[in-house]
Amino acid sequence: MTDRVIRHFQEELQQLQARLLAMGGLAEDRVRAAIDGLVSRDRSAIDDVLANDAPINQLHVEIDNRCFTLLALHQPMAVDLRAIVSAVKINTDLERVGDLAVNIAEAATRYLKHPAVKELIDIPRMARIAQTMLRDALDAFVRRDIQLAQAVLDQDDELDGLKTQVFRELLTYMLQDPSTIEPALDLILVSRHLERIGDHATNVAEDVIFMVSAKDVRHHLSE
Amino acid sequence: MTDRVIRHFQEELQQLQARLLAMGGLAEDRVRAAIDGLVSRDRSAIDDVLANDAPINQLHVEIDNRCFTLLALHQPMAVDLRAIVSAVKINTDLERVGDLAVNIAEAATRYLKHPAVKELIDIPRMARIAQTMLRDALDAFVRRDIQLAQAVLDQDDELDGLKTQVFRELLTYMLQDPSTIEPALDLILVSRHLERIGDHATNVAEDVIFMVSAKDVRHHLSE
Repeated sequence: MTDRVIRHFQEELQQLQARLLAMGGLAEDRVRAAIDGLVSRDRSAIDDVLANDAPINQLHVEIDNRCFTLLALHQPMAVDLRAIVSAVKINTDLERVGDLAVNIAEAATRYLKHPAVKELIDIPRMARIAQTMLRDALDAFVRRDIQLAQAVLDQDDELDGLKTQVFRELLTYMLQDPSTIEPALDLILVSRHLERIGDHATNVAEDVIFMVSAKDVRHHLSE
Repeated sequence: MTDRVIRHFQEELQQLQARLLAMGGLAEDRVRAAIDGLVSRDRSAIDDVLANDAPINQLHVEIDNRCFTLLALHQPMAVDLRAIVSAVKINTDLERVGDLAVNIAEAATRYLKHPAVKELIDIPRMARIAQTMLRDALDAFVRRDIQLAQAVLDQDDELDGLKTQVFRELLTYMLQDPSTIEPALDLILVSRHLERIGDHATNVAEDVIFMVSAKDVRHHLSE
């Protein structure tokens, strides 16, 4: 490749990363809005989340197209090739996070039809951890920072622990008072949606480690 | 590319497809085994599912490596490029299906600690639909068959309908008899895991349509 073509490729790659960050920011905003609406029992905030998934879906298609164009026109090798294939995967993960924000908003809509089961403490905490994991994973991708990606993997245990705690507490409510069964079920679903957002952040972090080191940390096969 | 290089590439691509089919078959077997174990209350069958996720994880890494090698060495264009990027995505989807088989087995393990809530009819039905969707989606990939891929997308509504039906029925049990709350919760989780397997089959089918037609059917943006 000539210098000019290489420079053009690197510019395109940076634009791709910028679009992935924009998509990550959008996905994160939507999760935050859905959880804020749930906690503050704000029906119109939740309706906003339900109505506005078009921007993230458009970004999903745009980013995929950018990846295919980069692969077809520049035929990148080594770390650049891994970066673009990782971008395809990360794009999929971020789109799912957007879907999960919708799933949270749907559960929240049902939840608000009942009196509050309890003050929500652990669920917003789970949401903050999941959002941080997602942001850190994307930062790690852009900076090609393995340490930060590893830190994301470490946070996933905390999220899993909180999910179990939320489940046990809500089960107690359900067993004591059957009128809480329906709304408590929706809170359990919300906690599982948040856990899955953490799983998507974990996928991104694993892709970053593979991209930078060409080392596969999934399944611990390479150790 | 010379004829010999092209022939070699097509052979590699066929091997890649064969490995994806093998992985799909494994994933499907594990889902079937987990559901059979749940329905027949066979603890040792469930333990087998929990203990044996290594083969699918190894295939996951192997297939990813094959995709990267094909991209780096052959720098494919157009439909071949889309086929390999689709293979990367499909590989991720199949690995998740394997994880979901484990999640089903975990829920089944907890479920078997309680008396049966009811005879299980709709859950095995959901499992059969999800398995068929997965198999059809992979067949569509190998045959590059858009009609079959579209048929997979159509089956997803049936799965969603059954999930809602399962939920309503189990909710009735929980409200009538609090002793069923814990086991019924696990059945609800199983039905959601099966729904997600259907979602992964849907992803594969969408990838097939994109691969063959370069038309993005996700989000209905291209219509």
